[in-house]
Amino acid sequence: MNELHRAETPGRTDLRLVRGDRTRKAITRHAADVASLEGLSGLSIGRLATDLGLSKSGVQTLFGTKEKLQLATVEAAREAFLDEVVGPALTSPPGAERLRSLTEHWIAYASAPLFPGGCFWAASLPDFDSRPGPVRDALAQQRRDWLALLAGEFRRAVETGQIAEADAELAAFQIDAVLLGTNTALRLGDAAAADVARRVVDGFLTPG
Amino acid sequence: MNELHRAETPGRTDLRLVRGDRTRKAITRHAADVASLEGLSGLSIGRLATDLGLSKSGVQTLFGTKEKLQLATVEAAREAFLDEVVGPALTSPPGAERLRSLTEHWIAYASAPLFPGGCFWAASLPDFDSRPGPVRDALAQQRRDWLALLAGEFRRAVETGQIAEADAELAAFQIDAVLLGTNTALRLGDAAAADVARRVVDGFLTPG
Repeated sequence: MNELHRAETPGRTDLRLVRGDRTRKAITRHAADVASLEGLSGLSIGRLATDLGLSKSGVQTLFGTKEKLQLATVEAAREAFLDEVVGPALTSPPGAERLRSLTEHWIAYASAPLFPGGCFWAASLPDFDSRPGPVRDALAQQRRDWLALLAGEFRRAVETGQIAEADAELAAFQIDAVLLGTNTALRLGDAAAADVARRVVDGFLTPG
Repeated sequence: MNELHRAETPGRTDLRLVRGDRTRKAITRHAADVASLEGLSGLSIGRLATDLGLSKSGVQTLFGTKEKLQLATVEAAREAFLDEVVGPALTSPPGAERLRSLTEHWIAYASAPLFPGGCFWAASLPDFDSRPGPVRDALAQQRRDWLALLAGEFRRAVETGQIAEADAELAAFQIDAVLLGTNTALRLGDAAAADVARRVVDGFLTPG
């Protein structure tokens, strides 16, 4: 029986799988919220079970180890970020306009905020950058993907003559650094930081 | 008896105070190392006592509460940073040259590194920026002092015609953000990040 067929005619086992998948998603999404506030290293299966009114053994069965829970949380955070920041910005034309849209959606993501503790990676990378292993690897890969997205749009803006020639990797590094600095400033109560981020990105996107 | 007199003729009580002060310093300096790796919120009096071969009750007596230990650790980190980065850079002439020296000493501080987990504030601010209270206030004040130092030197460079007119607060925010981004990149194994930081700061310091 293939996946499609199974989706059309769910039996008892399939329903249990669907339910398990939904529970997993609810747990990891909540775990991303907690990690944004208290760090990914502090996540515990017991704490999440209590928060969500589930049995500890049930959560244990779904994830197995704390590391697997952390990896699933990192993936859940990525999906939420794609939905909230990257996806909407991809509807803007490539290049300078898309970079502006990514910046606006990023500022909204950090200000609203999507995760109660602000940017998930601003909280998780410093927590895990001294802990080698699969969780750090996953976070580092997501950071590379994000920098590559910014650099790619910047390069497109240069190639199509929207902005002056400049080093795309260097620009991406700086834009990312300023967004993370803005997240810190917002967390510390400096509401003016959002405008600082806008001014910096605008500075990068002056026509050539 | 004033402080000076006490320093000249130490009696039994004074010697105990001096010893207590030295022990306090050794504990907080080690605590700053641990916090750079595992976060300031994870510090525990028991863990520090074990690490340093002291009794838990002795450490408890010296600091009282975990929050006081955290505050003393934040202050110890500041002193170590002043010794390693700010002090040496202040021997350079004010303005552009001092900003370059601050950057070089900062890169050395993050690369060597002074604290085993890299920049103390890069680890501690994300850990505490969602936890209102005296520890977050102390970290935020140190961040403001650092940004004010960068902005002041930048302003001096503009006023003395070393570099072109530009917004000093905005430049300080960007330089700080790039240094913190460099710290993250270094922690993730990207040794080229130090040169990125140099190029960005050089870009800010082009003659006007």
